Amino acid sequence: MSRIAVLIGDMFEDVEYVKPAEAFRKAGHELVHIGVEEGKTVKGKKQKAQVKTDISAGKASVEDFDAAFIPGGYSPDQIRVDPAMVKLAADFVDSGKPVLAICHAPQLLITAKAVKGRRITGWKSITQDIVNAGAEFVDAPVVVDGNLVSSRNPDDIPAFVEESLKKL
Amino acid sequence: MSRIAVLIGDMFEDVEYVKPAEAFRKAGHELVHIGVEEGKTVKGKKQKAQVKTDISAGKASVEDFDAAFIPGGYSPDQIRVDPAMVKLAADFVDSGKPVLAICHAPQLLITAKAVKGRRITGWKSITQDIVNAGAEFVDAPVVVDGNLVSSRNPDDIPAFVEESLKKL
Repeated sequence: MSRIAVLIGDMFEDVEYVKPAEAFRKAGHELVHIGVEEGKTVKGKKQKAQVKTDISAGKASVEDFDAAFIPGGYSPDQIRVDPAMVKLAADFVDSGKPVLAICHAPQLLITAKAVKGRRITGWKSITQDIVNAGAEFVDAPVVVDGNLVSSRNPDDIPAFVEESLKKL
Repeated sequence: MSRIAVLIGDMFEDVEYVKPAEAFRKAGHELVHIGVEEGKTVKGKKQKAQVKTDISAGKASVEDFDAAFIPGGYSPDQIRVDPAMVKLAADFVDSGKPVLAICHAPQLLITAKAVKGRRITGWKSITQDIVNAGAEFVDAPVVVDGNLVSSRNPDDIPAFVEESLKKL
């Protein structure tokens, strides 16, 4: 069983959080929600899902977790303005522990300067940002490169969950 | 009097469209709203403002305009998936005509590969994307570099409008 840090903020893509979260829990894993602030309710951009954060990024340490999961939507844009969140994301990638990133999630990893030389995918709007960050953009439902598992959009969720579970 | 192309999509930052648009019209300029689709109503992310697009990016040509205005919010992320919109933005920067960009607007210019070697500013979440695109990020209320006028956020609107009007 893995203890998974969910790096999340407002305007996450509802289904990109809900479906993987369900699958991870069903497989016996534990989710801990990490936000810019502790105890804050953050909402999906479709207003279908909401999550109360357990701890702030400033209080979280990679040592306390086995993996990170970063849902997409506009949540990554919201949380990458927080230096503690950015450092936490960088530490996760450096640690070699699985980092599960879907849709806009690579935005957080770009700000963390954590994708150079890596093969990843993401939502089509951020393709140029991924390339400019020194990563190889791969247009596929799921891309696994070492500890990084990435997918493009909600249609890719089944493939994303399947590869993520193999890493957990 | 200038004819200004407003490059806009859903989830624009309401005030970043409304206030400059008011000021530009008051000064006698004309606004033409260019969307991914023609005749579509696009809404601000705060649901306070909405705009019906006049023409699609695919039908628009830089030759028909004197300047471009790109509001922020999540509109730039929405419209930069459209190759015609991206080409139009690139053509505007190349043309030397004023390009007025606030908040997340540089995202469109990054996808258009139009900021390399330029001095610009933008919303803090996209700082690393701006740097990775080869631009110099300047943390100031308004930055003017040749035909590019850029600002960071809603607080910068007065400075943004002032420098934009000088270019129109």
